[in-house]
Amino acid sequence: MANTHGESASEYEPLALTGGIPALDGLNVVEGGGVTSALGFRASGIHAGFRANPERLDLALVVADEPCACAATFTKNVFCAAPVIVSRHNLDDVSYGTARGLIVNSGTANAATGSKGIEAAEYVCAMTGETLGCPASEVMVASTGVIGVHLNLDVFDSQVPNAFAALSRDGGADAARAIMTTDTHPKEFAVSFDGGDIGYDGATFTVGGMCKGSGMIMPDMATMIACITTDAPMVPDVLHTALVGAVATSFNKVTVDSDTSTNDSCYLFASGAAAPGAAPIEPGTAAYDRFTSALRAVCETLARAMASDGEGATRLITVRVAGAADDADADVAARTIANSPLVKTAIFGHDANWGRIAGAVGRSGARFEQHDVSIDIMGIPVLRAGLPVPFDEDEALRRFERPEIDLDVDLGAGSSSTAIWTCDFSHDYVTINGDYRT
Amino acid sequence: MANTHGESASEYEPLALTGGIPALDGLNVVEGGGVTSALGFRASGIHAGFRANPERLDLALVVADEPCACAATFTKNVFCAAPVIVSRHNLDDVSYGTARGLIVNSGTANAATGSKGIEAAEYVCAMTGETLGCPASEVMVASTGVIGVHLNLDVFDSQVPNAFAALSRDGGADAARAIMTTDTHPKEFAVSFDGGDIGYDGATFTVGGMCKGSGMIMPDMATMIACITTDAPMVPDVLHTALVGAVATSFNKVTVDSDTSTNDSCYLFASGAAAPGAAPIEPGTAAYDRFTSALRAVCETLARAMASDGEGATRLITVRVAGAADDADADVAARTIANSPLVKTAIFGHDANWGRIAGAVGRSGARFEQHDVSIDIMGIPVLRAGLPVPFDEDEALRRFERPEIDLDVDLGAGSSSTAIWTCDFSHDYVTINGDYRT
Repeated sequence: MANTHGESASEYEPLALTGGIPALDGLNVVEGGGVTSALGFRASGIHAGFRANPERLDLALVVADEPCACAATFTKNVFCAAPVIVSRHNLDDVSYGTARGLIVNSGTANAATGSKGIEAAEYVCAMTGETLGCPASEVMVASTGVIGVHLNLDVFDSQVPNAFAALSRDGGADAARAIMTTDTHPKEFAVSFDGGDIGYDGATFTVGGMCKGSGMIMPDMATMIACITTDAPMVPDVLHTALVGAVATSFNKVTVDSDTSTNDSCYLFASGAAAPGAAPIEPGTAAYDRFTSALRAVCETLARAMASDGEGATRLITVRVAGAADDADADVAARTIANSPLVKTAIFGHDANWGRIAGAVGRSGARFEQHDVSIDIMGIPVLRAGLPVPFDEDEALRRFERPEIDLDVDLGAGSSSTAIWTCDFSHDYVTINGDYRT
Repeated sequence: MANTHGESASEYEPLALTGGIPALDGLNVVEGGGVTSALGFRASGIHAGFRANPERLDLALVVADEPCACAATFTKNVFCAAPVIVSRHNLDDVSYGTARGLIVNSGTANAATGSKGIEAAEYVCAMTGETLGCPASEVMVASTGVIGVHLNLDVFDSQVPNAFAALSRDGGADAARAIMTTDTHPKEFAVSFDGGDIGYDGATFTVGGMCKGSGMIMPDMATMIACITTDAPMVPDVLHTALVGAVATSFNKVTVDSDTSTNDSCYLFASGAAAPGAAPIEPGTAAYDRFTSALRAVCETLARAMASDGEGATRLITVRVAGAADDADADVAARTIANSPLVKTAIFGHDANWGRIAGAVGRSGARFEQHDVSIDIMGIPVLRAGLPVPFDEDEALRRFERPEIDLDVDLGAGSSSTAIWTCDFSHDYVTINGDYRT
């Protein structure tokens, strides 16, 4: 027994930390919404043949009716894949933030493929651009699947026209399926907000998107790809700033066993189609604040979906750290807890094991004194002033039945806080990742 | 298939990196050697009653015949345990590197126990000192077991005299058993070397020790404790320098899922009994070099034993990184590979998955270009110039039958190198750590 137990209710107040749940104030959730909810976008998802199973969609195309503003964030992994290199070059150095669409294949990651892989990604942009009637530099490309295998360009030659023909206003759901790898379900979300009180009378703006990824670095199935669209009017620089901010508190706060794979990419397209001719949204305005809160809500909802779909996951875990000396300390403390196999196996085993949380935060490098630390597990106080406190273990077992588990830590060393999402660590994780690749 | 396969022998030469295996040049392995192999030390291990099972030894005592030089290294975890705080204070601030012995209990870690825990550790030092006939400050104390539970001082009162009575020159094996927690076997090793050619004619010096720990941070069973003894003549400062150097390349190069627990401690005692009256060994001499090579051999052998006994482990993994820009890059690259659950589950599954190794090293923060990287798995070239190379997968499966798996990475970015030991990640790991604590 690592805990002192008690049958009575705890005399300690829960920490009641906030954060970790997307804020939806002033936003309307679009039912069944996704990457084509915003005006000005069409999408498709087809079985092209990258995968053997004819039931599996494996080629997604998202296209704007007109060239539009585009921003993106990419993996920082040195082993970044060819499509990352080519798309970043197109967007940053050639089109300067203008794009027409995104093409994604699943099954093959085009990573660790050298110069031949880069030429292949460039070819995909060029031939897709011809189909769409735009320069190659306005086509973004992403690939996800096994590493070290070259793209089959014949499949693109024969199937991109079919994907183009299949484009529709309600093709978002098919596109979300076509980018899946080990995901157990597609991940889509969209919100809308009224432009009336923020200087865009009569307009309703929508932000929606899709993503894939089981919330983990998984070089066999190179990991996260997200595509978000909006019909708000935005210029590329402002769009990029908004995206970087939203990714920082969403996709970059997900960890299953690490941070960045070889192919991680997040794209954001803005058509302006909900307010044709209107002035672009400027930073520092109420419209910008509303837009970024909508973007954050979409990114955070997709990120949570990714974490809860981690391979073998049985629980979504939200790790909240408050009272940190600065943001970096909050992040490293939360990340160390969220990446700890001992914490994650304890959650899998329904074990309110505060000792493992204390051990993780103690070795994280965050600055604090042990006698200032408080820990709650699922709202149950388990540590105060660095010392264990009695708690009702039966109540803990009941709360472990919930699909979402909150771990709250207050370091008592400052005023910075953060939230990170992860999942538990199960036998199925070992089975999925330990099975010999046949 | 993440790899390009080939039936023929590889056209690529293996990297043949060195490091990872303790060097025994000029050293003699002491058969059955341990913490009492060096002259001037006695030890015992008894069942005191910290554990319910009367078959389990749970109190170890190691005593020098005379007060002797002592050095130690401790966990850097903020949640460090009371015995760490008390022993460090005794050694650094009171006895200035002189000690008479070490007392270790297993079953209770005396961690997260606040000021009461510190008073308990001080009490153990005082009453053990009375028994040994030395000041409390010359007694080192270590505890290992569950966190958040107070030591039972009555057990010390009644049983330390029994441990004292049981002290003997061949008590090392019992002591090594008494400090075990989740270890599956005791860990002991000793070497000796001749003093004739290094200025100590007629003397034979011995360095031997024991350790416990399943090579992982495990706050329920707070982790690593090592005790090493030598009969070489050493002053405390020199002994400390030698210990820090040896720990850096041994215990600090083991990682199962993290670095430092709340209780990690490594003690080194030097009696000088093999050369009574001789001058202490000085840095910069041949004797010092021989002594430190012996100390490294003992520490590295014990460290490897710890890694291979990781919970649920089926394989000892040695990760060697060469060609790094500096030592820090080598360390972080090797550590990121060694801590990757995806790499560790792949080894468990006998999967020569170079993509996961590349993914880990790519996100490690080490500086390199992907086209400069080479990877071997068990001596089989699998990546050259950042690109996969054909290899014989049947041969890889045969080599996976070995108990030790080598992963070699050359970053091609410099001349620094390192080796780190870890183990694979199995279903049993999840079972051991996910079982509800009853």
